[in-house]
Amino acid sequence: MAGETQITIVGNLTDDPELRFTPSGAALVKFTVASTPRTLDRESGQWKDGDPLFLNCTGWRDMAEHIAESLTKGTRVIVSGRLRLSRWETPEGEKRSAYGLEVDEIGPSLRFASAKVTRMTRAKSDGFTPDIVPDDAWNTASPSVPAAAA
Amino acid sequence: MAGETQITIVGNLTDDPELRFTPSGAALVKFTVASTPRTLDRESGQWKDGDPLFLNCTGWRDMAEHIAESLTKGTRVIVSGRLRLSRWETPEGEKRSAYGLEVDEIGPSLRFASAKVTRMTRAKSDGFTPDIVPDDAWNTASPSVPAAAA
Amino acid sequence: MAGETQITIVGNLTDDPELRFTPSGAALVKFTVASTPRTLDRESGQWKDGDPLFLNCTGWRDMAEHIAESLTKGTRVIVSGRLRLSRWETPEGEKRSAYGLEVDEIGPSLRFASAKVTRMTRAKSDGFTPDIVPDDAWNTASPSVPAAAA
Amino acid sequence: MAGETQITIVGNLTDDPELRFTPSGAALVKFTVASTPRTLDRESGQWKDGDPLFLNCTGWRDMAEHIAESLTKGTRVIVSGRLRLSRWETPEGEKRSAYGLEVDEIGPSLRFASAKVTRMTRAKSDGFTPDIVPDDAWNTASPSVPAAAA
Repeated sequence: MAGETQITIVGNLTDDPELRFTPSGAALVKFTVASTPRTLDRESGQWKDGDPLFLNCTGWRDMAEHIAESLTKGTRVIVSGRLRLSRWETPEGEKRSAYGLEVDEIGPSLRFASAKVTRMTRAKSDGFTPDIVPDDAWNTASPSVPAAAA
Repeated sequence: MAGETQITIVGNLTDDPELRFTPSGAALVKFTVASTPRTLDRESGQWKDGDPLFLNCTGWRDMAEHIAESLTKGTRVIVSGRLRLSRWETPEGEKRSAYGLEVDEIGPSLRFASAKVTRMTRAKSDGFTPDIVPDDAWNTASPSVPAAAA
Repeated sequence: MAGETQITIVGNLTDDPELRFTPSGAALVKFTVASTPRTLDRESGQWKDGDPLFLNCTGWRDMAEHIAESLTKGTRVIVSGRLRLSRWETPEGEKRSAYGLEVDEIGPSLRFASAKVTRMTRAKSDGFTPDIVPDDAWNTASPSVPAAAA
Repeated sequence: MAGETQITIVGNLTDDPELRFTPSGAALVKFTVASTPRTLDRESGQWKDGDPLFLNCTGWRDMAEHIAESLTKGTRVIVSGRLRLSRWETPEGEKRSAYGLEVDEIGPSLRFASAKVTRMTRAKSDGFTPDIVPDDAWNTASPSVPAAAA
């Protein structure tokens, strides 16, 4: 894929990640990140919370399993990936759409936490492995994507 | 600060992070990330490494300590922050400059690793804490950064 | 605001921008960008279109007027801003939400076009002017924001 | 290329762009962008300039010619591309390196300026193919799609 819209979001998991498997056996994980900006109140000199941004995220394969093993509800994460819009029709013929983030990289944030990292032996290389998930897998998965901010 | 240049980089630490303290006692950490892109060779159908991008990174305060505790040479990380250019003059009057990344968020990548996360009790809040490191601290530190584009 | 989710999107306007004014007289502009990624089909060696990403965008004040004067349906643009999720309730009590991009910077892309630029005399400075639109203005405006992919 | 470090920078051209041609006749353009962040001085309530970030940029082919035709010293631009580090050795054997931005998209900023855009007919394709989403498809689909997360 070329020309996709890259995005980096920092926030907290709203729930434990959900690990699933496609019929062909590929692992996928789903979770939602809530990112809350802060506004400086000039009068009081205090920071206060702005409206949170919720984003549904999907990760694949080994990374999906590492996410399910490592992260839980409330963990602060840094995630980068590609913003996507899925569109489908309900059995009743209603058109639906949902934004989601296709995760390329994710890590637990070290801002308020430390982490003990374990390299997994399955990784054949230190480098970047291009995404080879067939589009079918994605299409199969998308109708079950929960609504963007449900 | 407003209008800074945001950047997210994914790569491997070229060495263990170096933890230091400013005269006023603030922790800071320095490390370098090497990010290696891949090119698809259409004839062979193989991916091969492109030229690595090296970027010197600086992190502050509690996060600096968490980085020093959690990451080692070779760890793959995802880092977001602000790209900066430091400029100074040597005692001999030569002008020098160096690019660096002021780290806002960092985490060990879960692409090829899993992580056991420990929330640190010192964190007063789940939210985002704005950067309040005085510019002096930064300026003191920068002359020792190796020149990137000397 | 600190800790907002930055995003850069490149795509084409789906329609002419719509210029409006808040009750207090501030200009705002609304438009939608369609960004279409490409996939390389390895067998044929051809690029084909992926699913388009549509994003509703809002810009303010002088920039809103410059957008309305400069861009039309189909113009390819590069836009950077902050991704936001608006949530509200309909008079019938249904919960609704919509993603949108709060525009910080936008320009017509020079990839397939050239542009004749006219500096507007109202600009007091070359630099970055922080966003001073009161939250009220935004909140007043948001219920009338068309649904995310409407 | 996959796994390159994406960056978006907003700033002003420090000089007119320099257009050149490779021996094989491909156009390339070089220019430098200066991006100046602002700091809020809490005591005075005034914004003041921070240290500028300078970045050397390179653009290619038709886009290079459009840049040379459209932009001049001082023009405020929004640029996105890939951050790269070039390394070489001088004839005297000294190692040198330089960061630069490989431009993917650029446009004159509409924050303080308006622009008259001229679509260039010669751009059929040169690698990247433009967005050709038929307006019909979008217009037909859009009104009937419910809110993103309704």
